[in-house]
Amino acid sequence: MSAGVPAWVADDRHARAAWSRIVEPTDRVGARVASVLGVGAVLRHLFSGTRLPPSALGDGVSGARGVLEEAADRWRVRAAQADPDRDLATLARLGGRLLVPADEHWPSGFLDLGEAAPSCLWVRGGADLGALSRRGAALVGARAASRYGENVAGDLAAGVAQHGLVVVSGGAFGIDAAAHRGTLAVQGTTVAVLACGIDRAYPLAHENLLSRIAEGGLVVSESPPGAVPTRWRFLERNRLIAATASASVVVEAAWRSGALSTARHALRVGRPVGAVPGPVSSPSSAGCHRLLRESGAVCVTDAQEVVELASSIGEFFATRAPEPARAHDGLEGSDLQVYEALSPRRGSTGPQLAMAAGLAPAAVQGALGRLGLAGLAVEAAGRTGQTTWRRVAPSSGSRRPAVGGSEQR
Amino acid sequence: MSAGVPAWVADDRHARAAWSRIVEPTDRVGARVASVLGVGAVLRHLFSGTRLPPSALGDGVSGARGVLEEAADRWRVRAAQADPDRDLATLARLGGRLLVPADEHWPSGFLDLGEAAPSCLWVRGGADLGALSRRGAALVGARAASRYGENVAGDLAAGVAQHGLVVVSGGAFGIDAAAHRGTLAVQGTTVAVLACGIDRAYPLAHENLLSRIAEGGLVVSESPPGAVPTRWRFLERNRLIAATASASVVVEAAWRSGALSTARHALRVGRPVGAVPGPVSSPSSAGCHRLLRESGAVCVTDAQEVVELASSIGEFFATRAPEPARAHDGLEGSDLQVYEALSPRRGSTGPQLAMAAGLAPAAVQGALGRLGLAGLAVEAAGRTGQTTWRRVAPSSGSRRPAVGGSEQR
Repeated sequence: MSAGVPAWVADDRHARAAWSRIVEPTDRVGARVASVLGVGAVLRHLFSGTRLPPSALGDGVSGARGVLEEAADRWRVRAAQADPDRDLATLARLGGRLLVPADEHWPSGFLDLGEAAPSCLWVRGGADLGALSRRGAALVGARAASRYGENVAGDLAAGVAQHGLVVVSGGAFGIDAAAHRGTLAVQGTTVAVLACGIDRAYPLAHENLLSRIAEGGLVVSESPPGAVPTRWRFLERNRLIAATASASVVVEAAWRSGALSTARHALRVGRPVGAVPGPVSSPSSAGCHRLLRESGAVCVTDAQEVVELASSIGEFFATRAPEPARAHDGLEGSDLQVYEALSPRRGSTGPQLAMAAGLAPAAVQGALGRLGLAGLAVEAAGRTGQTTWRRVAPSSGSRRPAVGGSEQR
Repeated sequence: MSAGVPAWVADDRHARAAWSRIVEPTDRVGARVASVLGVGAVLRHLFSGTRLPPSALGDGVSGARGVLEEAADRWRVRAAQADPDRDLATLARLGGRLLVPADEHWPSGFLDLGEAAPSCLWVRGGADLGALSRRGAALVGARAASRYGENVAGDLAAGVAQHGLVVVSGGAFGIDAAAHRGTLAVQGTTVAVLACGIDRAYPLAHENLLSRIAEGGLVVSESPPGAVPTRWRFLERNRLIAATASASVVVEAAWRSGALSTARHALRVGRPVGAVPGPVSSPSSAGCHRLLRESGAVCVTDAQEVVELASSIGEFFATRAPEPARAHDGLEGSDLQVYEALSPRRGSTGPQLAMAAGLAPAAVQGALGRLGLAGLAVEAAGRTGQTTWRRVAPSSGSRRPAVGGSEQR
């Protein structure tokens, strides 16, 4: 090993900690090279000043040498200042841990990210990310949320948490915060995936919220302590939210909201995507409606539907409470026609009903018999002594509530 | 011809007028027999008392004789009182016409109904139903609509009418009325398909509305003058709304609303179905969300999207107005990273930017050059005489509006 190569390079945990400070999550060349050679080998090349072999990009990439030289140039800028001992000490002071792919708690769902999987995760909180991730449902959305959006996010979060799911979000203002808070309000477990270092409270107003999240859940980041939340880190962070959950639901998002990128990442890693609709007059829901129209997102309106979405690739199953039955439910053909032809007030004769319903007299008699047995029609003597029939009047105590007239189109 | 057979049976128009009084729209046997034998032949059998041949149900239907006898029994109840001369005279007094399939104005879209096509249509108004139907978009929904639903229905109707579409609906309270009124408000053309005779104002409060509809558009029904609006006629009427339009959009509907039957009919005749989302907290939108979840309905939020839906099988095309560009639109890779690393206030040196963006110094210089050309970065002397760069501050007069900080997740 060359004299310039630090001893810590030999330790996978230290090497990955350093690598996460050197490469940005956007660095596709870095992801490829680390995946082909291994993080330690790349660092040895960087520190020893030796050239990365062209095969470091995989087989037969044209112009590999130039790409690798340019990459090594940019990595050396930061490698010179990498100090994983310092970063891991900072982490230890926060009570945090570094997760690497070899760890038992590493989420198996990150396999779906392929090369785009993070080299390590900086984690605050004692829970098992792998276990939480298997029950994860991401609830995300815009910072500039409406009161409607925040209410829905809070309700959905509380509901799915009560179903035993873990709410994954991004710790931001607006929908994210409402989702985390809704979960905590019912003593649920929630995971915040940050775009900055987990030692930073970003936004500052969420310092207390992030601490509460870490008590029973986790605050995680692929960027090292001190890292600032840049736009590109936000966009790449969204792939981790998507991969940590079994499904991603966008609660509220404007037409061009960054929250939509979580949905795109989820689709890319094969996770179902849901979108919560809202008033068409609300610009805050335009992005959700766009997902429904253009991306095949599933329309999600309550917690049970989120559970259903997450369970479509997971272990949870949702059942919808049956709607109350109505009197004409199950009636069909001649029974329905005679039922509708009956008046609740005036008695009708068989021939009158045959005329009104357009049925043969024998068919009317058969239907009246069945309706009588079902308690939906009663016989009564008419004025001229003829037998007449009335529809059974609505009764609140009835086992079968009566037909509502207002929706009979 | 037997003595009991009226002379008018020989006239297709009279025969169909009578047949529409004898059979209900729900009568599948009637539809089949009329389709196999022709309306005139069926009537001749009924009036002459001869048996319908078993082949009247098509080939090889088991139990055909019994089914046909039962059907003939029920048809004779009403045939005895049929008087198409009287009905056609009533129609003439209303300034109406009877449309039959042989007429030029018969909608070609009714072919998709197969045997379920009506035998004739009772029409009020002078317009050409066939021509209107080719530009038809159905906007339907619940009677018990919210103010939100009625506002959206009115706005959509006005918008699609201004695109030259014809708004088809059912003349009922709530969404239907809002759709008809929204169309009339912009001098658009609208068609009301009724479940009762076109001589009846149902609901009575819509007497004036129906007259206004008939002035430039049409009020139509498959049921003869005097027919009352029964539940089963409403449900069957919905197939005509669906078949008269190129697409059907449910604007607002509760979970079990009858308005959903229009959507089902539309799917059955191969027409695209749209549903307008609303607040998930509103029971009045639950049926629309159900269509989005369960029936593959397209999420529709404005008139242009209705036009798009209707044009997917028709002649209209919609284009969405492009969204205003934002400063970082089109920026990618190192340009985006350097742009984000720049401060709008403090100047940054090349090495500072290389560190912040995780890029090689040469890549930073290249990006700064491109950003400078695009007017997104400016050069300025730093305190120590070094060259520094600033991000260009947002300016309302700028061709490229600046990045909004609130949505950068």
